[in-house]
Amino acid sequence: MWGGRFAEGPSAIMREINASIPFDKALWRQDIRASKAHASMLGAQGIVSKADCDAILGGLDQIAEGYARNGVPEDWDLEDIHMTVEARLTELIGPAAGRLHTARSRNDQVATDFRLWVRDTIDELDSTLGQLQLALLNQAEAHADSIMPGFTHLQTAQPVTLGHHLMAYFEMIDRDRDRFNDARTRLSMCPLGSAALAGTGFPIDREATAMALGFAAPTRNSLDAVSDRDFALDFLMAASQCALHLSRLAEEFIIWASQPFGFVRIADSLSTGSSIMPQKKNPDAAELVRGHTGRIIGCVTSLMITMKGLPLAYSKDMQDDKPPVFEAAGLLELCIAAMSGMIADSTFNTARMREAAELGYATATDLADWLVREADIPFREAHHITGAAVKRAEADGVALDQLPLSVLQEIDSRIDDGVFKALSVDASVASRNSYGGTAPDQVKAQIAAAKERMGLKQ
Amino acid sequence: MWGGRFAEGPSAIMREINASIPFDKALWRQDIRASKAHASMLGAQGIVSKADCDAILGGLDQIAEGYARNGVPEDWDLEDIHMTVEARLTELIGPAAGRLHTARSRNDQVATDFRLWVRDTIDELDSTLGQLQLALLNQAEAHADSIMPGFTHLQTAQPVTLGHHLMAYFEMIDRDRDRFNDARTRLSMCPLGSAALAGTGFPIDREATAMALGFAAPTRNSLDAVSDRDFALDFLMAASQCALHLSRLAEEFIIWASQPFGFVRIADSLSTGSSIMPQKKNPDAAELVRGHTGRIIGCVTSLMITMKGLPLAYSKDMQDDKPPVFEAAGLLELCIAAMSGMIADSTFNTARMREAAELGYATATDLADWLVREADIPFREAHHITGAAVKRAEADGVALDQLPLSVLQEIDSRIDDGVFKALSVDASVASRNSYGGTAPDQVKAQIAAAKERMGLKQ
Amino acid sequence: MWGGRFAEGPSAIMREINASIPFDKALWRQDIRASKAHASMLGAQGIVSKADCDAILGGLDQIAEGYARNGVPEDWDLEDIHMTVEARLTELIGPAAGRLHTARSRNDQVATDFRLWVRDTIDELDSTLGQLQLALLNQAEAHADSIMPGFTHLQTAQPVTLGHHLMAYFEMIDRDRDRFNDARTRLSMCPLGSAALAGTGFPIDREATAMALGFAAPTRNSLDAVSDRDFALDFLMAASQCALHLSRLAEEFIIWASQPFGFVRIADSLSTGSSIMPQKKNPDAAELVRGHTGRIIGCVTSLMITMKGLPLAYSKDMQDDKPPVFEAAGLLELCIAAMSGMIADSTFNTARMREAAELGYATATDLADWLVREADIPFREAHHITGAAVKRAEADGVALDQLPLSVLQEIDSRIDDGVFKALSVDASVASRNSYGGTAPDQVKAQIAAAKERMGLKQ
Amino acid sequence: MWGGRFAEGPSAIMREINASIPFDKALWRQDIRASKAHASMLGAQGIVSKADCDAILGGLDQIAEGYARNGVPEDWDLEDIHMTVEARLTELIGPAAGRLHTARSRNDQVATDFRLWVRDTIDELDSTLGQLQLALLNQAEAHADSIMPGFTHLQTAQPVTLGHHLMAYFEMIDRDRDRFNDARTRLSMCPLGSAALAGTGFPIDREATAMALGFAAPTRNSLDAVSDRDFALDFLMAASQCALHLSRLAEEFIIWASQPFGFVRIADSLSTGSSIMPQKKNPDAAELVRGHTGRIIGCVTSLMITMKGLPLAYSKDMQDDKPPVFEAAGLLELCIAAMSGMIADSTFNTARMREAAELGYATATDLADWLVREADIPFREAHHITGAAVKRAEADGVALDQLPLSVLQEIDSRIDDGVFKALSVDASVASRNSYGGTAPDQVKAQIAAAKERMGLKQ
Repeated sequence: MWGGRFAEGPSAIMREINASIPFDKALWRQDIRASKAHASMLGAQGIVSKADCDAILGGLDQIAEGYARNGVPEDWDLEDIHMTVEARLTELIGPAAGRLHTARSRNDQVATDFRLWVRDTIDELDSTLGQLQLALLNQAEAHADSIMPGFTHLQTAQPVTLGHHLMAYFEMIDRDRDRFNDARTRLSMCPLGSAALAGTGFPIDREATAMALGFAAPTRNSLDAVSDRDFALDFLMAASQCALHLSRLAEEFIIWASQPFGFVRIADSLSTGSSIMPQKKNPDAAELVRGHTGRIIGCVTSLMITMKGLPLAYSKDMQDDKPPVFEAAGLLELCIAAMSGMIADSTFNTARMREAAELGYATATDLADWLVREADIPFREAHHITGAAVKRAEADGVALDQLPLSVLQEIDSRIDDGVFKALSVDASVASRNSYGGTAPDQVKAQIAAAKERMGLKQ
Repeated sequence: MWGGRFAEGPSAIMREINASIPFDKALWRQDIRASKAHASMLGAQGIVSKADCDAILGGLDQIAEGYARNGVPEDWDLEDIHMTVEARLTELIGPAAGRLHTARSRNDQVATDFRLWVRDTIDELDSTLGQLQLALLNQAEAHADSIMPGFTHLQTAQPVTLGHHLMAYFEMIDRDRDRFNDARTRLSMCPLGSAALAGTGFPIDREATAMALGFAAPTRNSLDAVSDRDFALDFLMAASQCALHLSRLAEEFIIWASQPFGFVRIADSLSTGSSIMPQKKNPDAAELVRGHTGRIIGCVTSLMITMKGLPLAYSKDMQDDKPPVFEAAGLLELCIAAMSGMIADSTFNTARMREAAELGYATATDLADWLVREADIPFREAHHITGAAVKRAEADGVALDQLPLSVLQEIDSRIDDGVFKALSVDASVASRNSYGGTAPDQVKAQIAAAKERMGLKQ
Repeated sequence: MWGGRFAEGPSAIMREINASIPFDKALWRQDIRASKAHASMLGAQGIVSKADCDAILGGLDQIAEGYARNGVPEDWDLEDIHMTVEARLTELIGPAAGRLHTARSRNDQVATDFRLWVRDTIDELDSTLGQLQLALLNQAEAHADSIMPGFTHLQTAQPVTLGHHLMAYFEMIDRDRDRFNDARTRLSMCPLGSAALAGTGFPIDREATAMALGFAAPTRNSLDAVSDRDFALDFLMAASQCALHLSRLAEEFIIWASQPFGFVRIADSLSTGSSIMPQKKNPDAAELVRGHTGRIIGCVTSLMITMKGLPLAYSKDMQDDKPPVFEAAGLLELCIAAMSGMIADSTFNTARMREAAELGYATATDLADWLVREADIPFREAHHITGAAVKRAEADGVALDQLPLSVLQEIDSRIDDGVFKALSVDASVASRNSYGGTAPDQVKAQIAAAKERMGLKQ
Repeated sequence: MWGGRFAEGPSAIMREINASIPFDKALWRQDIRASKAHASMLGAQGIVSKADCDAILGGLDQIAEGYARNGVPEDWDLEDIHMTVEARLTELIGPAAGRLHTARSRNDQVATDFRLWVRDTIDELDSTLGQLQLALLNQAEAHADSIMPGFTHLQTAQPVTLGHHLMAYFEMIDRDRDRFNDARTRLSMCPLGSAALAGTGFPIDREATAMALGFAAPTRNSLDAVSDRDFALDFLMAASQCALHLSRLAEEFIIWASQPFGFVRIADSLSTGSSIMPQKKNPDAAELVRGHTGRIIGCVTSLMITMKGLPLAYSKDMQDDKPPVFEAAGLLELCIAAMSGMIADSTFNTARMREAAELGYATATDLADWLVREADIPFREAHHITGAAVKRAEADGVALDQLPLSVLQEIDSRIDDGVFKALSVDASVASRNSYGGTAPDQVKAQIAAAKERMGLKQ
């Protein structure tokens, strides 16, 4: 009854079910680190002899060197990274290797290894997110005064500065780093010593292994410790929100790079061009970020579904925790790098942006405000006058502040030439100097404050 | 070309698109609170006169009283809660009502209202989660010594105590409260005063409104402030993980309440019975919790998808932020209440649980450990002997510690009657007294520590 | 220990858990229709008397009239629509009402009602999708010759016609209708008579009720019949794909309606404008469609998660099948109506579209093809020459076919004035007349074929 | 600014973005098949010479042989499978290789290859699903009379037969095959010849390539043809529903294999045991199926999110279509094989199942029905009497039909010994012989009909 991949029948099926080594070998550094901490503790507690302990530690170092040099061998019969390491240790130091597994089981071991891996990955991502923020800061500083249209509904609404716009993403990344940091804090409890599910009778020192591995404390309940994958979900959720932020930036770059917008020229290094159409720059990197966001959200969805309704303690379903975490981490790392490059190396066409802000009549609300404030015209009437002025400017194909005073006075005689101070896009952005607003002074102050928070010299 | 619900054509469609009042009226308390803070600030800054400010504040209080008494009227022409309140304010105090909207827009207003709503909801959920933890603590304390089978793969593995098992859920809920608290901290920046997207030229005091509304600070970038829905996602992600935990507990109750298990009798108040089959207790509450988990995860998925790739700043898509948040919050509140009731009011059949642990040969590993430790038999051989003993007990239909010594000695002559101290389920659980382990002393210590953390007297 | 919404404790919780009437009252028409079919069959089989049968049928008609006029009363104590109808029937015709429930249970009843509801909804959606296709056909016909830039990566690639572009969506909707139709065919098996889970001993005629309700056949396995919600998932999956198609069209409208593109002016009836910025047309309807897509996908995700791992037969979790189906159906109906209106009532700025195609150098590949074909220049060299020509045109700010022949000959002397036939966007689209290509003749042929398939007169 | 994996900066990033060869090499068979069809058509139409056409066909065959023997080389500089094949063809036959790409582009090429791959995979899955159905049929036939408890809410409700229960899954798989078949029919339009997005000017014969590749027709709109991934979503949706069905069966096996149930003994070949606890059989295969369901649903979610809101025509995001499809297909294939093995090789403990049905008082409704039917006792009163009888049986720890007549008559004197015909579980299942019901005769009839539909001899 068997065909194709499983022609051998059940044995081939079980082999594939049980073999997690093709993906969990990614945990090798963490597995060896955790084993060393465990061995040292067993030695210190007198559970294994000093000689055995030393042999184990030496053997583990030797394995680590080998893996670093030649990679981890993928022998499906050894099922997973834990047994792969243990088998190798036995080859190296003989039966003493067997003592390493005293007072632990694969259930607490994998929970520990995987937490360490997630923590390491958070640390790497935090650093790359910092680089992305730096790229944003640099471009924001260079463009703190560059006018562009601020959009709502992708319709030109009010002028803003490009620096202000980029700093919006700085804020999002700040929250992402904060969220990853929360995940890091919450995962900082060490499952090692929870054994299969019920703890152990050996006189172990869980505080010691927790400290040695950089955790804040040992977990408080052994059943929970081996059944819990919250830390993986916390990671995936932080990754998903980060990807969502990047997807928004990516969408903007794709639109800005289109010919009708022409706001940005993406660096050759991060786009594909065409020998035949030199003006064409496919924003591959941005599209990839937007596309990968779907996959990263798919990963968090996947693990949530897998964990739903699982009885305690360990179930085999939980072996499906690692592929989505590994996949999301790899994709996100690529997305962050791609967006950092896009931000750092793109050239903004500030003239085009300014022109779009002007032709979009983005200062119409400023005109209305001026009428209310300076000419004491009621709000409703001011709106009506403004509408008429925009219509005229649109008909003439000019920006609002290019309408001659005489034309404006035809529309309403109470307008005087003071109005031009309000009509330019520069005046408009300068006026919005409330805290967090788009006025260049505000934007520069926020950039300075951000640099200070990041410990950068100004 | 139009039929059915939209027979009137586009006007009917737009009416339905624009009318968020059917759901956003849930924000009325927050809307009025934020408006009062804004009005007070406008008054303090001299942007509106003291008289107008007082009229506005009085009017808002009057509206709140009315809504508390009679609910919020649902007039689709007023579109949303903001315009509903403003229209009513105009009825009550006349044109001065119009001054309330100075230096704000609906974009920053809804961002502020919704944050306040999420914060209020987190506070409520935190309190109900505390009640659930209390219920768990009480049952765990009552059952710190009650033996049950500890499962892996839903196969009997080692004996644990029911108290230990329940305390695993206490830990999960602890993390849930921590996660909600992280969300609460991160949302604590006030968007009010970001206006439509670019800030405002009015001399507002954003620090003052932020403080008045209990936020830690105003948001730092107005574009981000009106475009950001991270706080809603943080909430939904915390809700999803909490629901996942409850779904696991629900699954266990459903299985435990089945006739072949018979571990628990769910209270009449939380099950549906049958006049015809009095022994049948449908675990409706538990099934509902498990089912609702799907919908709560659907809610977080929904909002992630909606936010993907949205350009800054406000887009109408973001109106779809509230239905999933409101739905998930309502469902989760019900789930927590249901599980609290289940935990508090269920009756555990501890005799049946103990029997299952005994007949499941859960102490087989204890026998092997005894052979290693006391008879100095190598690990592999000890396993072999244990397997033979379990097979014999299974054949005789008795628990391991009910095998006569003579029978055990037939299997291996090195066994003596000291073994019986290891073979009972009580001895087994007592022996696993590593930190976080299942030994009753450990469990009681964890219960005591938990009570202390929660500020409960012992 | 209870607070807030559940201050009354478990009874309030169970009341809310059990009461599905707030949402399942939407099934009233189907419930009554199915009950009438069941009653008629019971009468025909002699299981109930003719008199009772007639009384039941009359009573059900009376209930239907009442509900159509005044809506369905929402009495939570009656739990669901089935018991609401039955209780009312008892009021109307006395104890004979009790005979209606012979040989059925709520498990097969709700499965039947819900299938009927989904089938009715598919029929309505199919009709509205037909209207959307008609709107697409009409605009495509009007614009079969209108040139616009064809994009890849949102970069101008080759000229296409607007008619061709709109017909791409016609094809997508065709597949959507086909998919809904597949769902309709697959659900066409009637669960009625499966009773609680095991069938019944009464001599019922399931074939008769199936036929009476328009199903192809009765279901073949009673356990499956009451446990199956495939039909709901089929519906949600078809709805999700349809929403995805609409979201793509919505995205294009949003981008096209932006000021830098200016390809389309959305009708006033489906956008919100601004008295102050008359040129601003917020594409609310399109944004809503894009946003609702997230929610519709959330609905299918929700039900997939809920159904995962449910043991047979009925579990209470399955009560969570209806809210996502009802929500998705309502949202999709609104989305289709909104897009139909957008297509029918928008005004395309064909001059702007043509200009964008020309300035985007979309005919660069046509130039290269001409060089290969007419001047027998190798492909690689032809690409190089084309690149030079585009660069020159870009520098001069003109379309490719506006470069004077002399300039082109400076670049390569082998070019003669025959080239201009290839360089215009009109020549380009006319040349791509392979089956399904963008040539106006092809597009018109496809429109004609589509009309014929839809049974429209040409 | 670059660290870690992308230390080389943007070039390393773009390399990884562009290189789809690590996963799309899975398409090699389809790529070569489609290229051969295209080349033959180009030859037949005289677009390439017969000599070149023959050289291309010969070269492609040679490449296929090489790949079949040695696998596909993974040279990232060649980006994808299309360029990998083309580069190899150039090595083999020189410049004529370049003519193969006439009148096509990678956009229509990948759309064609991927459809072919999905179609091939559907064919394989259909065959393995047939094997699973066969396994179900065989076990159902062997157990058409084996009594087990039928559950609702996982509470014993009414007795059913194991054959009936297994046949419920047969029905689900039937729908799965039907759904895959619908997907297969809908994808049967050939994109080849749509070129980049607009069609081509070459006189190609799309009908011919479509036929040669086994499609029903060429696609009707070239823009749609290169932008459409409905076929991938149709596949993933069918895969998700199939996985959901398998997850339900898996959940049941996990519960049934637990010690308190003891309904099934999973074959050694598909479980992991323990040398120390021979009675323990971890249902790894079933858990894996349940776990993988989460990942498969994650895959469909992923692609839906990726496709949302993509403007026409090709965007790089669409490169993220293949990883989820490949992942889901591989996982599902494994799941189906695992469940086929589980069904075929498990041993059902029919004595234990029967006992559970008896002790669960599953015939209580039969008693009530008997009282109504035979003793003419009103329904409500009959229920009351039944409840009393169950309570008595429960107290005595016996099955309902083991209560002596005298005891039953104490409860209600109208009961006579005819009742015992209704009280046994065998009588109960035999009585439910409505179409699709659990009566062994019904079940056997359904098995026979299923065999006939599958073309199996009886």
